[in-house]
Amino acid sequence: MINFEALFKVSYGLYIVSSGDNFKGNGFISNTVSQVTAKPARFAACCNKNNYTSQVIQKTGVFSVSVLHKDTSPDIFNRFGYKSGKEFNKMEGMQVRYGETGVPIVLDDAIAFLECRVIQTFDVGTHWIFIGELVQSEILDDTREPLTYMYYRHVKKGVVPRNAPTYIDRSKLENKATGTDLKKYKCTDCGYIYDEAKEGKKFSDLPENWVCPVCGAPKKDFVEI
Amino acid sequence: MINFEALFKVSYGLYIVSSGDNFKGNGFISNTVSQVTAKPARFAACCNKNNYTSQVIQKTGVFSVSVLHKDTSPDIFNRFGYKSGKEFNKMEGMQVRYGETGVPIVLDDAIAFLECRVIQTFDVGTHWIFIGELVQSEILDDTREPLTYMYYRHVKKGVVPRNAPTYIDRSKLENKATGTDLKKYKCTDCGYIYDEAKEGKKFSDLPENWVCPVCGAPKKDFVEI
Repeated sequence: MINFEALFKVSYGLYIVSSGDNFKGNGFISNTVSQVTAKPARFAACCNKNNYTSQVIQKTGVFSVSVLHKDTSPDIFNRFGYKSGKEFNKMEGMQVRYGETGVPIVLDDAIAFLECRVIQTFDVGTHWIFIGELVQSEILDDTREPLTYMYYRHVKKGVVPRNAPTYIDRSKLENKATGTDLKKYKCTDCGYIYDEAKEGKKFSDLPENWVCPVCGAPKKDFVEI
Repeated sequence: MINFEALFKVSYGLYIVSSGDNFKGNGFISNTVSQVTAKPARFAACCNKNNYTSQVIQKTGVFSVSVLHKDTSPDIFNRFGYKSGKEFNKMEGMQVRYGETGVPIVLDDAIAFLECRVIQTFDVGTHWIFIGELVQSEILDDTREPLTYMYYRHVKKGVVPRNAPTYIDRSKLENKATGTDLKKYKCTDCGYIYDEAKEGKKFSDLPENWVCPVCGAPKKDFVEI
């Protein structure tokens, strides 16, 4: 039997994986970046085939990984986690450095970055695994702790986007509700669930300028589940 | 330029990845287990080609992942992290459950486990990446937190074995010593470094029954670096 809750015991960090060049860059929030060999240092980045960044990585053969810190702004998750770069240039207005390979590296809320050149690409079904050899790496801020997926889920109440390798339809898990008239509302942008029972406050009592704590979406983007 | 310290900002959990059957099982400490697809749930496990477990996974086509908790006993690291199963049966004396595929699952110090059937194997140089489809998963203890690599390194002062994808020769990094006569001693079993400057105590003043805090090796297994 598979208990999907057990999958949350696997630990991940949270990153912006970017690709492209100084004309057009793109990036997405990833929790599945992992070193695969030490000599030479190589990293695997797992990317949904439908993500626009996948196409850009395949075209340019490079990617960067920005390691996010614990107090990363919700704007970053909204921009890189729940919007597609097909529609706009996600790098616009961001602090971006261009690496040795020309790849954009997002510096906002990043404490370190890795720059990699793709040497292998593996097809694992819905996702590609890109294996990148490390070209450059740097610590940007040694005083802050890296954001972990667990911290994001438990403290920030965040959920992963639908395209993530670790996506779980929370509404199915969360719907084991209490037998009261308290309701749950789901953010249609990011999937965050506002649970009246947990929050101790009716959703309708929240002020009109209240926004999703995870992705910053307005109150009107929530639907009852 | 590559700053290897930046690589420590990537977050990992710590696991026992096991394989084999009820006749002979084997396992090793891994920090590079990661989900790669959600539908169906598939996991990547990265394994050094020289690890005996690699051979066993290739032979049996199955592996399990035991998620370790924060207070995992040093014995577990010594047995699964710094010894080879070529020489002895690592499962002997352990609490082991045999999964639906027959794979051994180590239960000691585990808060959850995943059981996977290998569907793809990728060659990434010194390591294999095994892609396993989830067959079974379970939470064993929901009260304890999973052990992260960062916690292991910072709080437990642990280092990864030489065969790990994230192995860094710490003696090179740590040798930026102070200009005093204080010395450093390295555990030849696991690589842990006893730094007299940090500990505030000469190595020679430690009692003879003192053991390596990471892997439990005796004092005589340390060499000056």
